[in-house]
This record gives sequence, structure tokens and C-alpha cells, in this order.
Amino acid sequence: MRGAVLQSPGDVRVDEIADPQITTGTDAIIRVTATCVCGSDLWPYRGVEPVEGPMPMGHEYVGVVEQVGSAVTSVEPGQYVVGSFVASCGSCEFCRAGYPSSCVHRVFMAQVGTQSERALIPHADGTLVALPGEPDADLIPSLLAASDVLGTGWFGAVAAEAGPGKTVAVVGDGAVGLLAVLAAQQLGAQRIIAMSRHEPRQRLAREFGATDIVTERGDDGVATIKDLTGGLGAHSVVEAVGTQESMQQALRATRPGGHMGFVGVNHDVALSGEELFFSQVHVLGGPAPVRRFLPELIELIWHREINPGKVFDLTLPLEQAAEGYRAMDERRAIKTLLTP
Amino acid sequence: MRGAVLQSPGDVRVDEIADPQITTGTDAIIRVTATCVCGSDLWPYRGVEPVEGPMPMGHEYVGVVEQVGSAVTSVEPGQYVVGSFVASCGSCEFCRAGYPSSCVHRVFMAQVGTQSERALIPHADGTLVALPGEPDADLIPSLLAASDVLGTGWFGAVAAEAGPGKTVAVVGDGAVGLLAVLAAQQLGAQRIIAMSRHEPRQRLAREFGATDIVTERGDDGVATIKDLTGGLGAHSVVEAVGTQESMQQALRATRPGGHMGFVGVNHDVALSGEELFFSQVHVLGGPAPVRRFLPELIELIWHREINPGKVFDLTLPLEQAAEGYRAMDERRAIKTLLTP
Repeated sequence: MRGAVLQSPGDVRVDEIADPQITTGTDAIIRVTATCVCGSDLWPYRGVEPVEGPMPMGHEYVGVVEQVGSAVTSVEPGQYVVGSFVASCGSCEFCRAGYPSSCVHRVFMAQVGTQSERALIPHADGTLVALPGEPDADLIPSLLAASDVLGTGWFGAVAAEAGPGKTVAVVGDGAVGLLAVLAAQQLGAQRIIAMSRHEPRQRLAREFGATDIVTERGDDGVATIKDLTGGLGAHSVVEAVGTQESMQQALRATRPGGHMGFVGVNHDVALSGEELFFSQVHVLGGPAPVRRFLPELIELIWHREINPGKVFDLTLPLEQAAEGYRAMDERRAIKTLLTP
Repeated sequence: MRGAVLQSPGDVRVDEIADPQITTGTDAIIRVTATCVCGSDLWPYRGVEPVEGPMPMGHEYVGVVEQVGSAVTSVEPGQYVVGSFVASCGSCEFCRAGYPSSCVHRVFMAQVGTQSERALIPHADGTLVALPGEPDADLIPSLLAASDVLGTGWFGAVAAEAGPGKTVAVVGDGAVGLLAVLAAQQLGAQRIIAMSRHEPRQRLAREFGATDIVTERGDDGVATIKDLTGGLGAHSVVEAVGTQESMQQALRATRPGGHMGFVGVNHDVALSGEELFFSQVHVLGGPAPVRRFLPELIELIWHREINPGKVFDLTLPLEQAAEGYRAMDERRAIKTLLTP
């Protein structure tokens, strides 16, 4: 089959790769109807994460079940499905506690690859959610977003305890940050401050529910958030970048007793214990437990109550994956959808 | 009046110092009936925190109100009172949200000093809680503990979400760690693992409710906690030391989705953002909002349901404060009570 492979930093090619094979009873194989490029794919693409050899790429997917292992009971061939970017067993103590992305049997789909015609899904019962039927074409981008960026933004907002009466600030205007805005709005936040200096992203943030836009960054950005909140800081801050600066910015923008949800995959970040101590901020982050939220997110999308698919501003055939990566790397696109 | 002053690291003397004076209407002056030496007093005593000149010492206190400012309404001369180690206004947004130790008008009592015959209490209405009457002498140590170490251990356990069905591990066997064990027991934890290698402290931990003692530290300690919890880690971990090693030990001993409450004042700690991210642990720390818990703690003590005063294993007249510091510094005493 055809699939995207990162040969070395900056060099994504679509080549012939091995067809997926069911090796254990809990596996499934899906035909991928839509996949996409994630901000986190850019870390190895840019060489920030090491590339030790050709890497199959991608971890987001909507598809149709083609084949299931002998132990799979919750999905069957022919069904349309969405799953998390982390495959999870669904039955271990962490899965049952609502943290499937820390499942003791977890498989990061990034290690399997989904930017391809078909994809192997480990732990199919714990990972996949069957859609109510064949989705209308215009729902595909939103369902695909649920697989990672929507679920991740949602987790950021949940971890930050966004909700009624709360002022929520979002650091980062990539797809995850923008969808954290949408999540905060859905969770009932009173005021939502998007931190963005890019006009098209500001527009989308407003469409998703942002009430205020802050263009300053770093300590200036923190000062502006404080100004907007009577000197106190935001109740809830979502961090969706993962750098030293953005983590500090998020922590400092949160009021004492408030909550910071951080979902940007951290790279070379060292947090001062002293600062964390005196901030008195609740902090929770990590790979989002998307599977926890999927049934609810699918329902909101299916009934067209939310339209997270708007974060896709570039759609290309899988064969043009390289251009999809380039466009995101150069920030010409917020997020690229690929159709195998 | 007489009061303890740290002249330079290692040199505590009891000298004549200025009597406290009411300068604003919200102040009160108390006659101190009991005060004590805190683990955090040892940081400047050991020179880990700078000593820039003679420092009045102490921040824990039980006493009798002698005088109140014109605006004070909730306490009056003659009443026995306990207050937090952080004076707080009681009416700002942080106080009302339950974080009085981050009060926008807060005053750390350590900057005022309470190891003295009398003490100035700023924000008396927001800070002091009147006792139901004159306490029996045997209750004094426990009431004094409520002022900081009990309230701090309690906050650690609350921040770690200790409760029914939970396995709680406590890193640190100082007074705060031991009282976090007591708090976890009161909060209904199912299993309480005290990490201690000192036999008298282990004994007290068991008395306060510890079900298990772990003597290993660092990564070995983490491995033992994992062994005791089916490989998963504790649901709740209280950190009560404040060093790089203890913070890492606490974080690594907590299971994904679990909670770490850290109440050791951090010194030279840098937490890896990557580790915090992939740990998926809820983290909350800071100077404990003791005032939030005081009414409940006083009630438990008054009705002799808890006996946190057992952490005091050395009682000295104020004049012998220097020996009280030495005994704690050399770990001959867990905690020293001083009687002015």
C-alpha cells in the first residue's frame, strides 16, 4: 500500500510500504478515509526529535473497518470508526480511571503510522468508536479532528477546569489551541482569551468562542492577562505549545488556586520548583486521554453542534503529503488533511 | 520584650526586641502562650536561605488577644486564638476562593516573628480563629500544630486528594510529613505509606495511621511504592521536603491520573517538563492555605479526635530557643515547642 514515510528531517515521501497484518486477536485493520498532519509530526520533521531511520508517519484517522482479530467484539468490518491517537486496552486500571493515554498496554499510533491507505489498530475494542453510520462528507474533517487535536484541546480545557464563571486563557494558536477555545466555550466558560498574533487564527478563535484576543507573548502577555482580570490572572489556562516560554507564560497567567492544563508536548522545558510552589496553581498535562471524550465529541459533531474541522485549511491527496508538511512547517496552513 | 533573633546562620539568640505596636485598624497584638521551631526556620538557620541581618524568627503561635485595632470585629482582648502562619485579609478573591495563603494582602508571619512574648497579627479578622474557651494545657501543642505543620500536612493530603479507596504515600518524615499521614487517615485513605528511615518517626507515623513504612529513597523508594501498588504507583503522594530528589521521588511514585500535593518549600528544584507531561499527574503545591482548614482542625483537636501535638518531642522555655534549633538541626528532635 501507499504510505508517508519520514526519511530524514524535512524529507517526507509517499512510498510503497508493507500492508498491515493482524498479529493478535485484539487488532483491527481499517481502510483510512482521512488522516492528517499534526503539529507534533513537525518535531521530527524539523529534527527537534531524532529520526533514527525511515519512520512511518501519522496518528490521526477516520476509516472503515476492513478486518478484525478473533477477540474483537465491539466493531466489525464495514463500520465507520474513529479512534484515539493512543491505542488503549480499555480495561486496565488507568483506562477505567479515565486515563487511557496512560494505559498500561498503550501503543502510540505514531509508532504504527496512519498516513497510509490502511492502518493497523491495536486494542481495537478499547480504541475505536463506531460511528452511528456512514458520515456525510462534510463531517469527515471534524471527526478526524476528534482523533487528536479536538480531544487534546478538550483535555487541555478540562484539565484547566474551564467552566461557567471562569476566565480561560489559551496559550498557542495552533489547531490544538484553537480547539481548546472551542472546548472552553462548550464547557461554559464566561470569558475566553486567545493568545494569537496571526489574523486568520484570531478569526477562527473568535468563531470558536474567544471573547478576547491577546497578541503579546511572554511576560508582556502575562501582564496583559493580568490587566484583563483585575490583576489576578485567569482562572484556567490551557498551554498548547510545549516550549519553556509557553509553559512559563501559562503558569504565570494563572491565578493562585487556578488550573493550568498543558497539552503541548514539552521539549527542553525545566520548571522552577520554587515558582510552581509559590504559584499555587493546579497543574495537569500529558498526552490527552482522547478516548475518554470520544463518544461525547462524536455526538456533538454528528449533530453539527460543533465544527472543529474548520482547523483544516488545506486538503491534499495523500500522495502530496510532503507539501502538506511544508505548508504547516512554514505556517502557511494551520492543519493539513490528507485523503488516501 | 524577649524574642528569638537569628543573627547569622547557626546563631539564634533570645534578646530584648521592640514591643509590637498596632499601626492599622486591622492589627491585633497577642500574648504568645506557645510557639515553636519549624522545619522551614532551618533553611536560614543552615544558611540555605540568605540571612541579610538580624531576623526575628517564628511564624507559629497560640495566644491570648491583648489588644485589637479599631477595625477588628471578630476577636477581642482576653480570647484564646490560633492563626495561620500567613496573615490574610479574608475578603479578597483568593481568600474567598479558599487560598488565603495567596491573599493579595498576605503577610508571612515569618517576616513579623512569633518566637517572642508578644506578636503582632496583621489582618486579625481574616487570620485569627477564636477558641471555644481557655484550652486545657494538654491541648496547647496540638492547637499550636494547627497553626502551620498540621494545616500544611492537611493541605498536602487534600492537594493529593487523599480519600476513601486511595493509597497515599508520604515523602518526608518531618512534622509536616507525619501530619500528612494523620490527615490522610482522617480523610479516609485506605492505605498510607510513610517513607521514613528513622525508627521514632516510623513509630509516630504508625500511630498517626500509616499502614506501611518504606525505608528506601529516590528511585529505590519509587520502585518499592510501585511494588506495593501492583506496579501502578500511589493514587496520592504528599511531598513534604522540598528538594530535587524528594520532588522527583514524589512525582515518580504517583500513578498517571493521580495527585501529588507538595508542601515542602522548594529549594533549587527544576522539574522536567517532559517528565511532568508524561507522568500525567495532577500537581498542586504551595504555602498551605491553613486558614481554610483551621475551624475544622480546631474542632477535631478540641474534641480530642486527633493529637497532632505529638510531633513536639522537645519543649523548652523561649530563652533556650538556641538549643531548640540545634536539636532540630541535628535531628535529635522532630519539633521543638517554645514557651515564652
